[in-house]
Amino acid sequence: MSDPAYTEVDAEAILEFGAGLLIAAGASEDDARRSAEILLAADLRGVESHGISNIGNIYARRMAKRMINPQPSVSVVSETPAAAVMDGDHGIGFLVADAATEMAIEKAGSAGVGLVSVRNSTHYGAGFYYALKAARQGMIGISVTTGGNIVAPPGGRKRTYGANVISVSAPTGRGFEFVLDGSTSVVAAGKVHIYARRGDPIPQGWIIDEHGQATTDAGAFARGGALLPLGSSPELGAFKGFGLGIFADVLSGVLSGAGASLTITEPGTAAHFLGAIRIDAFIPQTEYIARMDELIDGIKSAERQAGVDEIMIPGEPEARIEKQRRESGTIPLHRDTVRDFATVAAELGAKGPAW
Amino acid sequence: MSDPAYTEVDAEAILEFGAGLLIAAGASEDDARRSAEILLAADLRGVESHGISNIGNIYARRMAKRMINPQPSVSVVSETPAAAVMDGDHGIGFLVADAATEMAIEKAGSAGVGLVSVRNSTHYGAGFYYALKAARQGMIGISVTTGGNIVAPPGGRKRTYGANVISVSAPTGRGFEFVLDGSTSVVAAGKVHIYARRGDPIPQGWIIDEHGQATTDAGAFARGGALLPLGSSPELGAFKGFGLGIFADVLSGVLSGAGASLTITEPGTAAHFLGAIRIDAFIPQTEYIARMDELIDGIKSAERQAGVDEIMIPGEPEARIEKQRRESGTIPLHRDTVRDFATVAAELGAKGPAW
Repeated sequence: MSDPAYTEVDAEAILEFGAGLLIAAGASEDDARRSAEILLAADLRGVESHGISNIGNIYARRMAKRMINPQPSVSVVSETPAAAVMDGDHGIGFLVADAATEMAIEKAGSAGVGLVSVRNSTHYGAGFYYALKAARQGMIGISVTTGGNIVAPPGGRKRTYGANVISVSAPTGRGFEFVLDGSTSVVAAGKVHIYARRGDPIPQGWIIDEHGQATTDAGAFARGGALLPLGSSPELGAFKGFGLGIFADVLSGVLSGAGASLTITEPGTAAHFLGAIRIDAFIPQTEYIARMDELIDGIKSAERQAGVDEIMIPGEPEARIEKQRRESGTIPLHRDTVRDFATVAAELGAKGPAW
Repeated sequence: MSDPAYTEVDAEAILEFGAGLLIAAGASEDDARRSAEILLAADLRGVESHGISNIGNIYARRMAKRMINPQPSVSVVSETPAAAVMDGDHGIGFLVADAATEMAIEKAGSAGVGLVSVRNSTHYGAGFYYALKAARQGMIGISVTTGGNIVAPPGGRKRTYGANVISVSAPTGRGFEFVLDGSTSVVAAGKVHIYARRGDPIPQGWIIDEHGQATTDAGAFARGGALLPLGSSPELGAFKGFGLGIFADVLSGVLSGAGASLTITEPGTAAHFLGAIRIDAFIPQTEYIARMDELIDGIKSAERQAGVDEIMIPGEPEARIEKQRRESGTIPLHRDTVRDFATVAAELGAKGPAW
C-alpha cells in the first residue's frame, strides 16, 4: 500500500480502539471486542467499504443514540430441526447475525441443513463474514440481508426496494474459500459515493438520476437517484438482478416477519437470513473437495484474454490479501478514517487512536 | 397470438402426441404422460424455449438412442432429515427432478427445509416448474441445474463452464407466484440462436466471438463464441453472475458428486438441486402472505418510467399467460414445430400430429 493517504496500523491497536468506542457507547466489553473483530475481518480481506472505518457512523454513534440496543436479549421466536426465526432485539448486527450463523451451523450439524431468518437486527457489516464462517467449518454458508431502499425496479424511476445482499461461501482444497458477496444491484451505493467524492464519472448503467434518466454523473445518486438491479438494463438481464433482490427480501425481511426492505424505514434496522449446509450430509467431504477442485482448476486453466495473467475465482483475491495482512499484523487506514476516529472518540468520551 | 407462423392447438391433443412419442422411444405410458405434461407446463406460461417444441430433439431422439434411460431406477444415495442425494440413473430429467422435488417438499414438511442434490440426470426442461410446484404447496421452492459448458469466466476467452440455471419461487396473496427463472449468463444460448436464425444483430454484452472479442453478430456464437456471465462486463458486475454460476454448480454438480458442469461432457447429462422451505417453520402463513403482499404492492406502486403501464413482478406476466391458455385450452405452436413433430414421429414409428 504505497498510497500516501494510507498508514499501516497495528491490527491489535485498531481492535482495542474500536472496542473502546463501542464500550463508551454502552456495549459490554465482550460484545464490543467481538464486534470490532468482525469489522476488522473485512479490512483483513481488503473489504474497506465494510470495515472498521464505519465504526463511528454506522455503529458507535447509533448505539450511543440507542438506535442500536447496546444490551440486547437475542431470542429464538420459532424453531424446527432445520429452521428458525431469531429476534435481534435491535442489537448490533454483528452479534445478532453471528448468533444466527452459529445456530444455522448447529442445525446443519444434526439435520444436514440449518436456515435462520432474523428480524429486528441492525447493519451487520460485510455479508461474507457469516458465510465464510460456515465454509471454514467445512460447510456451505449463506448470508443474506436487507439493504437500504435505494434500488429502482425495471420500469421504475425512483428508489423503491433494498440493495439487498447475497453472500455465499464454500470450502475448496486450493488454499482459499469460494466467496460470492455482492448486492443485488449493479454496484453498492458506497461505490457510487467514492466516485462522487473523487469527482469522477461513473460507468453508464450503475444508476438513474432523480428524474429516472440514465446518467454517468456520480453526484446524481446523492440528489435522489437510484441504483439499478444487477443486469442494469432489461436487455442485459436486469429482471434477474431484480428477482434476486426480491428473493433476498423474501428470505430475510418476509420470512422473519420483519417486513420486506421497503417497509423497513428506520435507518440501520435490518433483517437477515443465515444458512449452513453440511457437505457430508450429501457426499463425503473428500469427494466434495475433489469435485470442487476440478471446478476451480478447470476455470483457472481456461484460455485467457490478452493481458490477463490469471483467472481469479471469487474469494481468491481476498484470501491473498488476508494472508499478507495476517502476516504483517497491520491494516492500512485512510487518514480521513483516523481523523474520524479521533472525532468520534472525543464525542463519546472514549480513548482516541494512539497511532 | 396473431403471428401467422403460429397455430392454436388443443393442449390435450399435444399432450397425447408428446406422450406417444416418448412411449415409442421406450418410456412407460405413465412416465411419458408426466414428461409431456411438464413440457406443456412451460408452454402454458409462454416459456416456448423450454416447452414441447423440444420433445423431439432433446428428449425422444435421445431416449431412442438410449442417451436417456427410458426405464430408470431412481435411487436415494444418502439422506438426513433435511438433505439427500438422489441418483437419476440417466432417466428423463423431468421425472428425476420431479421425484427430487417431492422428496424436498416431504423433508420440508417435517424438518422445515428439504434440499436434494441430484446426479446422473438429464435435461429437465424449464427450471421454474419444480420451484413453482413447491410454491403452489405454500412453500418457497428452489431449482438449480447445470447447463452446457458455454460461458466464459471474466478474463477468459472461451466456453468454459455451464450456463447453470437458478430458479426460485414463492407464494403471494396476489393471484400469482413470484418466480425467478434464469441462467446465470446474461442470456440463455437459445436466445442467441433465435437472433441468429432471424439474421438480427444481438445487443453488445451477450457474447464474445470465437476469438474472445466483443460482438453483436449472433452467428458468432455457433462458430465457437461464448456466453458472458450475468453482469456482462467487469464494471457492470460480471463477477456476480460468475459467482452465481459457480454457486449453482456447487449445489448441483459438486454436492451431488456428479462433478461440476465443466466435467460433464456427455450431451444431455445434468445434475440438479431441488429445495423446499416450509414457510410456517418460520412464521405463520397468514403473516408471511401479509408481508409478501406489502413487498409486491410496494414495488408495483413505485413511480414508473414514461411509457411504462405497469411494473411487473417476476412470475406475474407468465401467470397471466397461463390463465389465458388454461381458459382457452390451447397452446400456440410454430409451424416449424409442427413439421418437426411429423418428422420425429415418422422416425420413431409414433402416431404423427393430428392437427
